[in-house]
Amino acid sequence: MNNSAYLTSYVNQFVETVKQAGVEDVVICPGSRSTPLAYAFAKSEGFHFYRQIDERSAAFFALGIAKAKKLPVVLLCTSGTAAANFFPAIVEAYYARVPLLVITADRPHELREVGAPQAIDQVHLFGKHVKWSVDFPIPEDNDESLPFIERHIHRAITTAKALPMGPVHINVPFREPLLINMEQQHPVVQVSQTEMGQLVPSVEFIGWYKDLLQTNEKGLIIVGDSLPTTAGFWEFAREVQWPILADPLSNLRCSVPEDCLPLCIDQYDAILKENAFKDFVVPDVVVRFGAQPVSKPLTQFLKACKPTVFIAVDESPIFRDSLHIVTHHIQVGATSLWIPIEEKQSSSYLENWTKANDIATKHVQAYMEVEEDEGALAATLFETLSNGVDLFASSSMPIRDVDTFYNKTTKDIQIYANRGTNGIDGVVSTALGVQAATKRPGYLLIGDLAFLHDVNGLIVSRFQQTDLTIVIMNNDGGGIFSYLPQSSETTYFEHLFGTPTGLEFSHIAAMYDAQYDTVHSKEQFVRVLNQQKMKDVRIIEVFTNRQVNTETHRKLWTAISEELDLIWKV
Amino acid sequence: MNNSAYLTSYVNQFVETVKQAGVEDVVICPGSRSTPLAYAFAKSEGFHFYRQIDERSAAFFALGIAKAKKLPVVLLCTSGTAAANFFPAIVEAYYARVPLLVITADRPHELREVGAPQAIDQVHLFGKHVKWSVDFPIPEDNDESLPFIERHIHRAITTAKALPMGPVHINVPFREPLLINMEQQHPVVQVSQTEMGQLVPSVEFIGWYKDLLQTNEKGLIIVGDSLPTTAGFWEFAREVQWPILADPLSNLRCSVPEDCLPLCIDQYDAILKENAFKDFVVPDVVVRFGAQPVSKPLTQFLKACKPTVFIAVDESPIFRDSLHIVTHHIQVGATSLWIPIEEKQSSSYLENWTKANDIATKHVQAYMEVEEDEGALAATLFETLSNGVDLFASSSMPIRDVDTFYNKTTKDIQIYANRGTNGIDGVVSTALGVQAATKRPGYLLIGDLAFLHDVNGLIVSRFQQTDLTIVIMNNDGGGIFSYLPQSSETTYFEHLFGTPTGLEFSHIAAMYDAQYDTVHSKEQFVRVLNQQKMKDVRIIEVFTNRQVNTETHRKLWTAISEELDLIWKV
Repeated sequence: MNNSAYLTSYVNQFVETVKQAGVEDVVICPGSRSTPLAYAFAKSEGFHFYRQIDERSAAFFALGIAKAKKLPVVLLCTSGTAAANFFPAIVEAYYARVPLLVITADRPHELREVGAPQAIDQVHLFGKHVKWSVDFPIPEDNDESLPFIERHIHRAITTAKALPMGPVHINVPFREPLLINMEQQHPVVQVSQTEMGQLVPSVEFIGWYKDLLQTNEKGLIIVGDSLPTTAGFWEFAREVQWPILADPLSNLRCSVPEDCLPLCIDQYDAILKENAFKDFVVPDVVVRFGAQPVSKPLTQFLKACKPTVFIAVDESPIFRDSLHIVTHHIQVGATSLWIPIEEKQSSSYLENWTKANDIATKHVQAYMEVEEDEGALAATLFETLSNGVDLFASSSMPIRDVDTFYNKTTKDIQIYANRGTNGIDGVVSTALGVQAATKRPGYLLIGDLAFLHDVNGLIVSRFQQTDLTIVIMNNDGGGIFSYLPQSSETTYFEHLFGTPTGLEFSHIAAMYDAQYDTVHSKEQFVRVLNQQKMKDVRIIEVFTNRQVNTETHRKLWTAISEELDLIWKV
Repeated sequence: MNNSAYLTSYVNQFVETVKQAGVEDVVICPGSRSTPLAYAFAKSEGFHFYRQIDERSAAFFALGIAKAKKLPVVLLCTSGTAAANFFPAIVEAYYARVPLLVITADRPHELREVGAPQAIDQVHLFGKHVKWSVDFPIPEDNDESLPFIERHIHRAITTAKALPMGPVHINVPFREPLLINMEQQHPVVQVSQTEMGQLVPSVEFIGWYKDLLQTNEKGLIIVGDSLPTTAGFWEFAREVQWPILADPLSNLRCSVPEDCLPLCIDQYDAILKENAFKDFVVPDVVVRFGAQPVSKPLTQFLKACKPTVFIAVDESPIFRDSLHIVTHHIQVGATSLWIPIEEKQSSSYLENWTKANDIATKHVQAYMEVEEDEGALAATLFETLSNGVDLFASSSMPIRDVDTFYNKTTKDIQIYANRGTNGIDGVVSTALGVQAATKRPGYLLIGDLAFLHDVNGLIVSRFQQTDLTIVIMNNDGGGIFSYLPQSSETTYFEHLFGTPTGLEFSHIAAMYDAQYDTVHSKEQFVRVLNQQKMKDVRIIEVFTNRQVNTETHRKLWTAISEELDLIWKV
């Protein structure tokens, strides 16, 4: 075979193996060294094909697709720092357990570490933040080449999909010339089939666990981020009759069956602050599915009460317990523990939770009607969301506002955020990725710094249709820092943490041909939210005040705690 | 000592050690975990203090300062993906040999790998792309703590400065509370002094080398990027009387002493394309200082002629020879080989080079007057640059246009680019960093994709004065790919490589309060360049056409080669 022929076979085999493994989406960054694979993916039928110029944003975009689909997404770039730009999203994917198939094109061995242009040491480039990394052989005319890459691509994808899911990295060297034969077909090696096993618990464990659920009254179920599915959960919860403390990212505050609404405790962030109620609801048993919840008050509550039995259901050996309170690490898929038991009755323990939850809900409603701060405005947004949309919450304040103000509902709304490492980077891109995957109208709640950080995420909207409403809470700077102790320092605080940029995002909206509105009051916000969406991207910039936000939030917590204290005073 | 007192001592010791080592510049990204160090740097007198919200841009900005000063710059961020965003600039710094002191704040050990927020595995986060990396101990009240960190900070900075210079990484865990005592002084440990040795060759080598210079007529001196200094070079070159093939990044095309102008061959990229001249000037000896030059024709020429003696003066064991033509790797600082010899006479070999160079110069001048393509416009820019400014060239086409069209001059103009890994990322930030360091008016020549990639680099202009003129060559997409063989593929090329975004940068200019002009002809360009600069940042957007650029370039090369062939026909 000539050079072009075996290069073509190599990339055809590559692409065909990826496709047969069920991968549906390919995100490509323009570059020269990756040409053979870019062309091979482009000419292969059946992939959703996306482009992004900024590799950092591209990687987060791929992360968004993979997060929504729970399927590996191909992310391809050329050699050099292009690959290094993938790093933030890869780190997030690793900790958020999102499957990615990262493919970096590389120079051949003879051009490595000899000062050749755009040649960096890409072998194991992403260190400990991928589940597996492999440096591929150069395309060669030999019988072992295609079977070898078939086996390794298979392994890469299976590794990405195995629980806990995560990113994998294939580094692929290409020699010039980089042109493939666009007509040539015939991948020559059969692609192997896969059956992926499930992590299930032993019969002995199930017996003990059933008994635990059946005989304990003071039990809590906590559900955090990153469940593979919620299907089957409510059937389980309905029988157990324990309060369900549902982190918004569990997606158990949405699509709640009508009769399960009382079980769903969505105000725990408000009712577990300083008050007497907390001491009345110390649990004996906690079962947690998914990641640790966002809420700090819940975290502190759990740390203080140290339940006798604390089960963390976590499919990874890196189980998540920063409080050192877990007593049982059950390394199985969450769904394997949503098992039938004998249906229980509601308890006074559950009723206490429900009552406090109702009180907090009442206060939050009243607050929403009176106040115009970030929280009240966020709550206003959540109320207007209709059935069948997705909500993406940025890290920093937005996810906290979702946690506090997103009320349980029967509507089908999926909530997403990047909580693997809680960065404010790549948020716009991840939201666009989710939207690309689900095709449902998307809403992104984001602060001004996070929006600015990933403003390049909008570039993909130039290359494909999208449907995203971006609500920017603009407090001109790092609002979250105002809640931290370091804000008491007065000389340097604003300089180091506030970092107001004074930038006007109307220019961004104009540049990206986005529908744009500014909002300075709640009334205006409601009006704008009810207006029709006319463009692919809509930006609603809501101006708030960091100082006011801090004060009104604190007033609300005090009011709730005071009423709880009246009832549960010792 | 209480917690705050020893935390304060720790960061005071940290900052004082850094300062006494001669570090002058600190680039900080807002974040919580890094609070103790941020406050300690902020309150310490005498640092230049910069802030940037986007950590990727911040790192390139620090790289720019360090590149201009050849001194380590502190780059500080909080824990999590903030640190991962530093990666592209760190990789560039590693290969471009730019000293950086990267400091990442981290969670304490008890919060690592247990699902705590913003905690990623930061130990050796940057892998093989830093010269040294160390995970610091948590601040503690013990006698060993301060001496230990003093020693290690000293080692980090000395490592960054030792040839070849490069980035180093200190990971610093902090426990809450993160507030230091702003009044407390007393770093308690004396900071050690440093004398850094020079890499010099043996007497035996110098003897052989002198003889080589003295007795060979057909010798070439090639100077590439990243020399620590150019001082002393021309005294040496004047005596050797070999042609000096000066890559623009050698900065030997600027500040050329009047009498050395004939020695300086600046048109080698044009005269070493397909023609008969090449065969007349095959060298016996080549001495190369600095990195491999940008020019592809020069590279191919050297590869074809394989000189009997090819000396690469390179202070690193990773010496740069992607062509495998170096016969002598001399691992010393370049200046130690700029030694006096007995002054030689001009040779016919030199005269051949000079004559061809003059012919090419004449053609380029004529071309500049007639054409209006990217090259001609770039040349127009270079001509108007006055004494005492800096020029930053983006990777991709701009550096190639500089290589081709930047003529030797006696003016003091410094030329910079990111050529460690040739990325188009972080270019705006690096240029702003250079400007912050030199305080001279800066010019940045950049393509539309590279400008868009690092548009966030402009954020620093909100926090500090700057003086940068950005000339965007807007060909709406990846112009360089039109020169590559893959452009012959017609179905997918534009989609995969051209990637036109259609974005208008006037909006960016408005957002960042930059002076803004558009240019559609050379006449207009000249007029605009002569207008007064009124704002910190000025953006001149020059619209060009990818197709035309490719064609006119090719016409120019043909004309030069044809005239050379007339003279040096075999």
